[in-house]
Amino acid sequence: MSSKPISVLITGANRGLGLEMVKQMVDTQSPLTPLSVLFACCRDPDGPRAEELRALAKKHPDIIKVICMDTADRSSIRQSAEQVGSLLGEKGLNLVINNAAILINSTLVDSTPEDMAKTFNTNVIGPMSVIQEFLPYLRAAAKNSEVPGMSCRKAAVVNVSSIGGLIKNVPFLQELFTAVPYRVSKAALNMLNACAAFEFQKEEILFTVLHPGWVRTDMGTADAPIDCEESIQGVLQVINSMSDKHHGVLTDYEGQTINW
Amino acid sequence: MSSKPISVLITGANRGLGLEMVKQMVDTQSPLTPLSVLFACCRDPDGPRAEELRALAKKHPDIIKVICMDTADRSSIRQSAEQVGSLLGEKGLNLVINNAAILINSTLVDSTPEDMAKTFNTNVIGPMSVIQEFLPYLRAAAKNSEVPGMSCRKAAVVNVSSIGGLIKNVPFLQELFTAVPYRVSKAALNMLNACAAFEFQKEEILFTVLHPGWVRTDMGTADAPIDCEESIQGVLQVINSMSDKHHGVLTDYEGQTINW
Ligand SMILES: NC(=O)c1ccc[n+]([C@@H]2O[C@H](COP(=O)([O-])OP(=O)(O)OC[C@H]3O[C@@H](n4cnc5c(N)ncnc54)[C@H](OP(=O)(O)O)[C@@H]3O)[C@@H](O)[C@H]2O)c1
Ligand SMILES: NC(=O)c1ccc[n+]([C@@H]2O[C@H](COP(=O)([O-])OP(=O)(O)OC[C@H]3O[C@@H](n4cnc5c(N)ncnc54)[C@H](OP(=O)(O)O)[C@@H]3O)[C@@H](O)[C@H]2O)c1
Repeated sequence: MSSKPISVLITGANRGLGLEMVKQMVDTQSPLTPLSVLFACCRDPDGPRAEELRALAKKHPDIIKVICMDTADRSSIRQSAEQVGSLLGEKGLNLVINNAAILINSTLVDSTPEDMAKTFNTNVIGPMSVIQEFLPYLRAAAKNSEVPGMSCRKAAVVNVSSIGGLIKNVPFLQELFTAVPYRVSKAALNMLNACAAFEFQKEEILFTVLHPGWVRTDMGTADAPIDCEESIQGVLQVINSMSDKHHGVLTDYEGQTINW
Repeated sequence: MSSKPISVLITGANRGLGLEMVKQMVDTQSPLTPLSVLFACCRDPDGPRAEELRALAKKHPDIIKVICMDTADRSSIRQSAEQVGSLLGEKGLNLVINNAAILINSTLVDSTPEDMAKTFNTNVIGPMSVIQEFLPYLRAAAKNSEVPGMSCRKAAVVNVSSIGGLIKNVPFLQELFTAVPYRVSKAALNMLNACAAFEFQKEEILFTVLHPGWVRTDMGTADAPIDCEESIQGVLQVINSMSDKHHGVLTDYEGQTINW
């Protein structure tokens, strides 16, 4: 099946799951191929934490564009949207992956207002701002598509969240890792996605939530059962298979729908 | 049945549902009687918006203590906790009702980062800060009680939230009132409560979420089907009947458990 090349943007693409997405997406065997362009965003593209991403971009200069974006800073998001817009052309942007996030390990007693505000800003206001600033390009992509319905090859926002943001999981997950500001932010992100799914239904822009599994990254720690490769292999397949059925829904990296 | 007098604190007690709670609680027929003291908190106790509360306090000077507390300001919460502490004595504080909240009507497209941060600060960080600052008094009350298990007469935090914070309700509620920052904040508050319920289980401090119904207040608007009196009559009965079964659970003003 030959598909139209798609444009993709990933936040927090310099390490962990975001970097692994970039790695696997430029592979010609990836489910999401062909790509026209992959905007790999990170907050410090010239710094030491983006070394691997820079090397990868050097190997794939036609596909990967490294973009400076601090998802905790609205003006940085706006600037990156302008830059992306100027590179995109009229076909718009097909797929935005809100991946960047922070996790602060603290109990409710120990969480400070600053911990809460900072985590909410990065994990919720960040994705919201990305949606808002890139909306013109997502809309262009939705309008530019001749295919009815929703898909990640047409116009979509994948919000990487976590089953740690579900209330029903608190009793067993909080025992494993205590991260109150993070849980609260992911519950909030899940709601943000639901509101977006409602608001953009008619425009056929897909809004969906993805749980990547518990993965060995800086955030997931060495205790996690799976590695980035396994998680993202699943994630890309799931993303590629997404349709109207996934709109407003939470799916894990194995394609399982998870009830709120 | 003669019960021990209990101490209660309500935030946002100067109008709407908070004020109605104060009104009904000082009534000798109220389910929660007898009260030893009722801390009615509001951010501007001397201002025009607290006139009715001041009049009520004047009528019940032995029970009602009007306390200045801005739930969007940690230092104000801390100061009020110091003041309440000095008035309480060693028996501690039995019941905290996190009622104060704001609602900004906006779609996802129109919500600004400032709308989101302000709403999160008042509706989520506020209740968290109240929990943290008043925890010593709640703990004292829990320890001071000879009754096993949990109840609002022993040591409890009732977080007034909303079914508007449930993802499953977005499709029909967002049609009725568009309030993305509010929905996101209430989803976050529900998660905060779940984390608190987990953390304070062993100490037998009850943490519960209450939906007061859709009520004719400034927030609920004149379109709401019920008035404050009806809502709070239900609310006080429900609060009075609460036990371990309500820990980490969402209940409405009619006593119905609502699934997340
Ligand atoms: N790992 C797991 O087990 C797991 C489980 C469930 C969900 N998730 C979710 O999966 C996503 C990726 O997690 P991960 O495990 O890859 O985490 P990670 O290894 O800690 O990486 C986080 C990424 O987010 C970026 N980031 C953080 N704050 C940022 C900001 N203000 N601006 C731009 N980028 C920012 C980081 O960039 P810097 O290098 O600049 O800090 C980094 O690239 C997150 O949404 C996370 O919640 C992970
Ligand atoms: N009404 C409904 O239909 C409905 C439905 C579901 C849930 N609820 C929930 O019920 C609770 C009460 O709502 P309501 O209808 O009574 O709302 P309301 O009429 O708008 O009253 C809000 C109260 O919160 C106070 N408040 C707001 N921000 C504050 C701050 N920073 N510091 C201190 N106090 C602050 C207000 O005080 P000021 O006068 O100083 O502003 C006022 O006393 C809220 O948690 C709301 O989310 C209401």
